[in-house]
Parts: sequence; structure tokens; C-alpha cells
Amino acid sequence: MRLRLTPRDTTFFDLFAASAKHLVTGANLLGEMLGADRPTRKEIGKAIAEAEHAADDATHTIMRRLNQTFVTPFDRDDIYNLASSLDDCMDYMDEAADLIVLYKVDELPARVSDQVQVLQRAAELTADAMPRLRSMDSLSEYWVEVNRLENQADKIHRKLLAQMFDEIADPIELMKLKEIVEKLEDAADAFEKVANTVETIALKES
Amino acid sequence: MRLRLTPRDTTFFDLFAASAKHLVTGANLLGEMLGADRPTRKEIGKAIAEAEHAADDATHTIMRRLNQTFVTPFDRDDIYNLASSLDDCMDYMDEAADLIVLYKVDELPARVSDQVQVLQRAAELTADAMPRLRSMDSLSEYWVEVNRLENQADKIHRKLLAQMFDEIADPIELMKLKEIVEKLEDAADAFEKVANTVETIALKES
Amino acid sequence: MRLRLTPRDTTFFDLFAASAKHLVTGANLLGEMLGADRPTRKEIGKAIAEAEHAADDATHTIMRRLNQTFVTPFDRDDIYNLASSLDDCMDYMDEAADLIVLYKVDELPARVSDQVQVLQRAAELTADAMPRLRSMDSLSEYWVEVNRLENQADKIHRKLLAQMFDEIADPIELMKLKEIVEKLEDAADAFEKVANTVETIALKES
Repeated sequence: MRLRLTPRDTTFFDLFAASAKHLVTGANLLGEMLGADRPTRKEIGKAIAEAEHAADDATHTIMRRLNQTFVTPFDRDDIYNLASSLDDCMDYMDEAADLIVLYKVDELPARVSDQVQVLQRAAELTADAMPRLRSMDSLSEYWVEVNRLENQADKIHRKLLAQMFDEIADPIELMKLKEIVEKLEDAADAFEKVANTVETIALKES
Repeated sequence: MRLRLTPRDTTFFDLFAASAKHLVTGANLLGEMLGADRPTRKEIGKAIAEAEHAADDATHTIMRRLNQTFVTPFDRDDIYNLASSLDDCMDYMDEAADLIVLYKVDELPARVSDQVQVLQRAAELTADAMPRLRSMDSLSEYWVEVNRLENQADKIHRKLLAQMFDEIADPIELMKLKEIVEKLEDAADAFEKVANTVETIALKES
Repeated sequence: MRLRLTPRDTTFFDLFAASAKHLVTGANLLGEMLGADRPTRKEIGKAIAEAEHAADDATHTIMRRLNQTFVTPFDRDDIYNLASSLDDCMDYMDEAADLIVLYKVDELPARVSDQVQVLQRAAELTADAMPRLRSMDSLSEYWVEVNRLENQADKIHRKLLAQMFDEIADPIELMKLKEIVEKLEDAADAFEKVANTVETIALKES
């Protein structure tokens, strides 16, 4: 551990933890949405949008504090990157949910559930890891596991793409599903970016 | 206001103002393009491309000066972000105009005009705000209004998407229009990013 | 040249050169893929994925070293930007190759070869330029030429888009080809971003 010559603003840790908790809420609601009927999906979509707003507020609070704080617990760039990549995770999940409702999609391919399960697991791991930024305790297990999950998400995504292009004859249906599936893949990538930023922070602290 | 210990290069302000003026030109030309016939659209497309080149030159001048100037009026990162997000606004408007011509689109849905009107208003507000960066005068009204406009753009975009998927049966026509409409939405997002960067700068100066 | 007060870690130069060599391998394999039959394409796809993994390892090594090195040969941000844009070049070429295999595309339009030839030339120029970062020798020729190539790629891409929308009646075939062609265009943009970063570095050093 580096010697600290100055007291540091510790509330950044709480803000990151709060932000990551919204991701767990969002990912779980997305999981519920898949099995629901159309009116229920609309309701769940609203709840995800609320989680997205809450996450957005958390990001804005972090950014504002970052711009007004002289001494920060990590490099300013890393705080900025961590806040924006956490925000991206939520945005992509919210966009996927929004498109499921907007496009009035009836049935989603079974592998979409696999994609969402990976996101739920990544969200839980991220929410568990954020409070450990304070002590830098056992973070490597977190980022290794999220990288593994992203590889898994990538494989599911490629299989899903190949399957959809083989099986769906209606091009408009294909366009809709492809866009939803890509937002979910973007969300998995964003979780990996969070993990990579945590790795960067931990390396600098070691 | 922070005490200035060193003289600062003020020409950055002029360069930002010049860059934002090209956005007004571009957005207004885009508005004209919508109602025009196909040969006129091609002419207007060339004029937008010229505005895009001029904006590009302004961005390059800012970046070059940034790399060769020791004392800057704001944080280097904020100058960089402001210049690149101004550039993005223009790029997306230019790409939308280019696709309208390239895809030989005949009729655009009425809501596309609503999208472009939001961009015209955002461009005017941005061009008005840039010279006020020098004095940091009444900038909050600007960023609050641009954020409101981006919300409005987002709602128009979602309604447009739903409508297009309901009403357009030809998948290739749908692909073309969807791409154009998304570039316009990207432009609205880019204007919001400009406003957010200005907010960041103002917060640091306050 | 600026006076160096401290010895600098020179291995960054070797790492950038190594990273750029993988781009040459990748671009040339992509060229071979276009003319090959479907089983051979699959084999070549695997070889490109290997080049992508090797490039990925090089990027990680650069990033790790960057986070653990106090004195760097250029600004940290420029090293970061150079490493990530080199990585992007490879990622887009790998994604294009992957989609050619995944979508079981039979015939690619002739202009796709023109796109790939531009990428092969850009990769060679980039690999030649990286070792010259040490001496800052004749780099301007490199970035001017890559900017010219990107303009050429852009023109090919636009002609290809217009042609595909004119000639391909099957919307699903069009979706597949459009996505591949866009990844190749993204790769050309990424090579330009590498060149722009080198220009930034050279300007600061001059």
C-alpha cells in the first residue's frame, strides 16, 4: 500500500456501491421481464427505467464531487472511467428492456435468458466488489470472474446470432431481435470494462 | 472566480465559437434538405459536407493549439472533450444528410422534421453559449435547456421507431430510415455531451 | 527535441512495434479469406482470432506497464490512446472475419477486396512507423498517407453501400453484408485514429 499523506474523500466508495446496487435491481428486473406477458413487461420496463434514473443520479453525484474535490482516493481518470462504465451497464440493460416493449416482441429465443443470467451474475459480483475498493481486498477474483463471464456472454451471443439468421425468415423480426441481443452483449462488455478499470486501480495501488 | 496567476490563451474561446457556428449552418441546411426534391437535396448535401469540413478544420486547430500551449483557460481534458463533442454533433448531422442522399430516400416520416427542429434549436443555443465561456455568464440556462431538448429528442425518436416498425412493411426501406433516424438521435446526444462538458467546466470554475 | 532529465522506459516502443506487426498478419489473412472457399475461410478465421489474441496480450502488457511506470516516453494519455486504437484496428478486422464465417456469406461484392487492400496498406505503414516513434523520424509521411487511405476507404465504403442497396433484393443478405462492410470501415477509421495519435505525440515532441 502507498503511504497516504492526505486524508481522502471516502464517500466515493459509497457512491460506487450505491451505483452498482442499481445494476443488480436492473438485471433482475430484466430477468423477470423475459418470462412476462406484454402488459407486465410494460410495467417492468417502467421499473427498469426508474433504476436507470437512480443510477444516473448516482453517476452525476460522483462526477460533480469529482470536479469539486481536490484529493481523490484514486486517479481522477480512473474514478471517471469507473463511474461512466457503471453507467453504461445500466444504460444498455435499460435500452434492451425498452426495445423489448417498444418493438412488441412476443417470443424471445431461449438463449436470451442465458445472456440475461450472465448479466445478473456480473451485476451481483460488481455490487459485491465495489465496497472492497476501500480495502483493495480480494478484487482479483472479481475481475477474473467477470472476464470469464464476458467470454461466456460472447459465446452465447455468437451462437444466438448464427441461430437467428438460420431460423428467422422475417427480416423485420430479425432486425428487432438482433438489436435487443446486441444491447445485451453491449451490457456484458460494459461489465467487463468496469472490471478492467478496477484492475487498473488495484495495480496502481499495489 | 479563481485567481489567475498566469495570462491565458483566450483564442480557444474564439475557436469554440467558430466551431459552434458551423453547427448552426449544418442544422439549418439539414432542415432545408427535408422538404427539398432529390436534385436539390444533393446540392444541400454538398453544402453540409462543406460545413463539416470547416468544422473539422476548427477542431484540428483547437487540438493543435492544445498540444502546443502550456497554459490553457480550462483543464486540457475539458478542452479536448468540448472540441471533440462539438465535432461529433457535426459529424452525425453530416452522416444523416449523406445517407438521405445516398439511399435516395423519397419521403421521410413527419417526425423526422421534429428531430431536426430540436437539432436546430440545440445548435443555436450552443452557438450562443460558446462566447459566454469567457465570462462564465448564464451558462446554466444553456445546459438545462439542451438537456431538456435531448429528452424531447429521445421521446420523438422512440415514437418514430415504434411508428416506423408499425407502418413500414418494406424491410429495406425500414433499414434505410432507421439508420437516418439514429444518426439524428446520435446528433442530439452529442449536443447534450457538449452541454455536459460546459457544465463540468463551469463547476470547476465556480 | 526536448531535453530529457530522466532515463525513459524504451520498451514501450518495442511493444507498439509488436502490436502493429499483428495488424499486418491480420490484414493479410483477411485478404486471403475473401478469395477462399467456406471451409478454408473457417481455418483462416481461426488464424485471425489467434492474431487478435496476440494483439490483445500486447495491449495488456502496454497497459500494465503504463500503470506501473513512473516515467514514460510520451504523455500517459497518448500511450493509452495509441495502445487502444491499435487494439481497435485488430478488433474490427477480427469481427469482420468472424461475421463472414458466422453468416456463411457466399459471395462478397468486389469492392470489399478494395476495402481490405486499403487495410493491408494501412497496416504495413503502421508497422513501419511504430519503430520510428523512438527517433520521431519521418513520421509525417506516415500519418499523411494513412489519412489519405482513410479518405479512399470512405469513398469505397459509400459506393459499396449505394451499390448494395441498389442491387441486393434480399433484405437478410443485405443486413449481413452491410454489417461486414461497416466493420471494415470501422477498421479503416481506427487506423486513422492511430495515425492521429502519432501526430499528436510528434507535435508535442517537436
